[in-house]
Amino acid sequence: MSASFLNSRRLMALFPILEWLKTYTRQDSHDDLFAGTITAILLVPQGIAYALLAGLPPQLGLYASILPPAIYALMGTSRTLSVGPVSIAAIMIAGALSAPEISALGNPMQNALLLSAESGLIMLAMSLLRLGGLVNFISHPVLAGFTSGAALLIIGSQLPQLLGLKPPDCVLDLACYSSYFSSINTATLIISTASISVLIFFGKPITVLLKKTGASVSLVTAISKCGPLLTVIIATLVVNQLNLSAQHVAIVGNVPAGLPELSLAFVDGHKAHLLLPYAAFIALIAYVESVAIAKVTANLRGQKIVPNQELIALGFANLSAAISGGMPVAGGFSRTMVNFSAGARSQMAMLIAAALLGLAIIFFSPWFTDIPKSALAAIILVAVIRLVRVKHIFHTWAYDRADGIAEVVTLLGVLILGIEEGIALGIVLTIASHLRKSSHPHIAIVGRVPETEHFRNIKRHSVETWHHLLLVRIDENLSFANISYIEDYLETELRRRPDTRHIILIFTSVSDIDTTALEALELFNKSVLATGRTLNISEAKGPVLDKLQKTDFIEQLKPGKVFFRTEDAVKELG
Amino acid sequence: MSASFLNSRRLMALFPILEWLKTYTRQDSHDDLFAGTITAILLVPQGIAYALLAGLPPQLGLYASILPPAIYALMGTSRTLSVGPVSIAAIMIAGALSAPEISALGNPMQNALLLSAESGLIMLAMSLLRLGGLVNFISHPVLAGFTSGAALLIIGSQLPQLLGLKPPDCVLDLACYSSYFSSINTATLIISTASISVLIFFGKPITVLLKKTGASVSLVTAISKCGPLLTVIIATLVVNQLNLSAQHVAIVGNVPAGLPELSLAFVDGHKAHLLLPYAAFIALIAYVESVAIAKVTANLRGQKIVPNQELIALGFANLSAAISGGMPVAGGFSRTMVNFSAGARSQMAMLIAAALLGLAIIFFSPWFTDIPKSALAAIILVAVIRLVRVKHIFHTWAYDRADGIAEVVTLLGVLILGIEEGIALGIVLTIASHLRKSSHPHIAIVGRVPETEHFRNIKRHSVETWHHLLLVRIDENLSFANISYIEDYLETELRRRPDTRHIILIFTSVSDIDTTALEALELFNKSVLATGRTLNISEAKGPVLDKLQKTDFIEQLKPGKVFFRTEDAVKELG
Repeated sequence: MSASFLNSRRLMALFPILEWLKTYTRQDSHDDLFAGTITAILLVPQGIAYALLAGLPPQLGLYASILPPAIYALMGTSRTLSVGPVSIAAIMIAGALSAPEISALGNPMQNALLLSAESGLIMLAMSLLRLGGLVNFISHPVLAGFTSGAALLIIGSQLPQLLGLKPPDCVLDLACYSSYFSSINTATLIISTASISVLIFFGKPITVLLKKTGASVSLVTAISKCGPLLTVIIATLVVNQLNLSAQHVAIVGNVPAGLPELSLAFVDGHKAHLLLPYAAFIALIAYVESVAIAKVTANLRGQKIVPNQELIALGFANLSAAISGGMPVAGGFSRTMVNFSAGARSQMAMLIAAALLGLAIIFFSPWFTDIPKSALAAIILVAVIRLVRVKHIFHTWAYDRADGIAEVVTLLGVLILGIEEGIALGIVLTIASHLRKSSHPHIAIVGRVPETEHFRNIKRHSVETWHHLLLVRIDENLSFANISYIEDYLETELRRRPDTRHIILIFTSVSDIDTTALEALELFNKSVLATGRTLNISEAKGPVLDKLQKTDFIEQLKPGKVFFRTEDAVKELG
Repeated sequence: MSASFLNSRRLMALFPILEWLKTYTRQDSHDDLFAGTITAILLVPQGIAYALLAGLPPQLGLYASILPPAIYALMGTSRTLSVGPVSIAAIMIAGALSAPEISALGNPMQNALLLSAESGLIMLAMSLLRLGGLVNFISHPVLAGFTSGAALLIIGSQLPQLLGLKPPDCVLDLACYSSYFSSINTATLIISTASISVLIFFGKPITVLLKKTGASVSLVTAISKCGPLLTVIIATLVVNQLNLSAQHVAIVGNVPAGLPELSLAFVDGHKAHLLLPYAAFIALIAYVESVAIAKVTANLRGQKIVPNQELIALGFANLSAAISGGMPVAGGFSRTMVNFSAGARSQMAMLIAAALLGLAIIFFSPWFTDIPKSALAAIILVAVIRLVRVKHIFHTWAYDRADGIAEVVTLLGVLILGIEEGIALGIVLTIASHLRKSSHPHIAIVGRVPETEHFRNIKRHSVETWHHLLLVRIDENLSFANISYIEDYLETELRRRPDTRHIILIFTSVSDIDTTALEALELFNKSVLATGRTLNISEAKGPVLDKLQKTDFIEQLKPGKVFFRTEDAVKELG
């Protein structure tokens, strides 16, 4: 019995849908139907747009919006995350596919499916190795700098689409640029401008207007989220009716009708080998962004995200993307917020959205042909411009200089060196600055707050001191990274205070002493004893004392001692 | 006046000899003359032996023992460090010179001089960039593992010399090995065995014996340190008298007479480029070992080592080695201990040793020809076998598992992958384990020790608690590396204690909160407020409060508060 209980618990951990379906109500299903429909309306233009952004045929984005979100719905721990094509992954795919050694391979569609499959396998491997915690080593400033940089790259990549130009061949040549920009396609420019205007209007303005009319919240939500679909419908009708494609307005072109076929035909060992580093970065970023977004919405409802299960769910979602002919997927920020604010209660909303998208591709794919690329570029532009967070940079810079530098360097790294290089640079920088910080720990000489048992920094409080006692509080674990700084500090203080007879190290903040630090303390104690002084320890925590008792360090301290409280040390030595 | 005072201070910082010469006494000069002579006696065989170990002609070791220690004597901050050829650097040089891309260049002597010059320049660059602190990122366990591994490699490299064999060509082929070992040169083996016996006898046994006879300490020291020279003299006389070189006993061969000429003829841009990575590792290890040894002796006499000045002194010492035809140099452990225990008061001892070595090479170099290589191999073997610290590995393993793993992995890495790869692996491992540790901070739920103002871990002490207060002490700085662990911890505790109304984070051990941690705390506070609870902070230190006051975090906490003392928080909320 206990075994089957365990199995059902494990099954529920692997398929959280089994957990929440048990308490699923009729009201929940109403809410999910509404939210799922709204999200599907957003998914159609986004799917096509992000596939084009990645340099791929539109169906790779649409296919990525059917099976992968359905798989995630069964396995994901977030109730509201909307998995599918996302802008940041799309620009990373574009970068990978256009890299010289990859584009030389030909067949970008196959390469994209390989990227999906490999990202999925990498996520599954990470979950097996319990490497979900790796995500913590991408700090918020690095992620913010990376996101801003990638968003700027996306905007840059969409400008030619908005103006009806081919990507420029000019390099710092004014004459070339002026002739390049003189070939702007007027019809395209008008569609872009109109699309952007409609999208902006369907943002805040329409919400404010509708609220004034007293419309219900769900109606306001529903209408305001239709902006992208409406933009696409109007633009497509205009292009179709005025036959603008004859006037060189770029259109999406033929989209194959019907559901994708499942296939493993994309598998190719040699290509997979070359694509692996790109897939690794895509997997890392897809995972980090998805978990970050999932956490935001889960926190707002007091729900819990299990990082390792997310790796499994996203891993299988990406594998299913590859098999069903889709580009790599992740949780999208804007879609998830739309789904959440439309009132989604569970992943049932995403199952509904996936089903609707399946119907759309079966019945409406001929209608996708005439969608002007400029309208899709407008949708991308309006979506990603919010990701460029200039204010965040200033806030970070003001709060923590090292974090500010990491954010700016990552942003510039992404723009100048490339996406993978930028994020790698940011991560290295964060770790280096973390090590530098922990090699300069905060150390305070303390004295007693009169008539209490509290000991505080002599520089910040008016406290009692004793001229032959040196009370030093070290505010960090002692390790190879900081022990020589601590030693130098103590030696300098001893030279400044030649009267010192007893040094008392206060270990309130010390939870660990590594081998390097222990050996350095042993040497330091020897030199302290040689000058006729003693080294003492107070307020050491249990785990630290346990560890020291494995050695003869406490023995070596004699006549120095280990005191439970600093107060005791002062009473005995003071 | 103030400017010239500053200049003289700067001059003394650059040339510490100007400082200690001011108080130099006649007694000091007697002590230094004695210690310098003893060290010179050791330097002659060591210089030749380490040059051969590096795969170089003997004079490169002898030349490295003249000008470089003299330069260090003027500029080094250690009074007793003996700079010259050392075993670990020698095996690294051997590795570099025998690497396929380097040996293809030909002219190993020129390559060795380039390594000296580049190591010197790298040290000087490190001092300009104030990178002396980098040394802290090589932890003691990694250094110990590296030293043990390198010592084992050295021993392995000396076995053929001791047995009179060429390095084997066999790879896992028993027949080959048996025919290989059957060609052992008996005369060589006898010299090796006799040399090792004499050297061991001149270690502890002779000291114990002489002390029993009541001989003075300095006499005991002088005699016991003559072991290597005596070994070489006896072995050379035997070889010479019995004409053993005709019986295939390998000898040192011709050593050019006279002092080295100064020259820059070794400079070659292409070669320098290829040698750079090897030189970087040699510079790093030479610096780390020298400073470690210098610190040991300085601590014993209450003197101070200035790491950045050491980089300058060792940098110029290596440059001078290159220009005067010597191999790369560093502070040698055994020589420094000999110099120190022979009573050296200052670097004057090293100036004397350098002068004696200069005289030796002018007058005695013909005598070096017949030194049997096996006697030198015996000297190396006896010197480095002490560097294999098996006990240290067990101690480290018992005290700190992560450090133990780093030590073993570094040792195996050096043996299996190579010297540079092994130490690089060790450094990466140490940093990774440091990050892992700091991502799992120690967190304690605390209560009040009755009738005091002390708050201690509820798991370790019998303390008062309040069912609607959650008092949590976080024992580390809050950073990107650990904040999600801390968040998970708090969320788990809140689920376990649904009665909690106020969370009090005790920041006694928190000296910094980075941007990632701040943003996570803001989100956490929102979810706490959403469940009708409050988040409070107590015992925050000055620098942390200063930083938080730059943001509106304290505002966001309301009705949560910042308390000076945990006691205050308990009084108000308890």
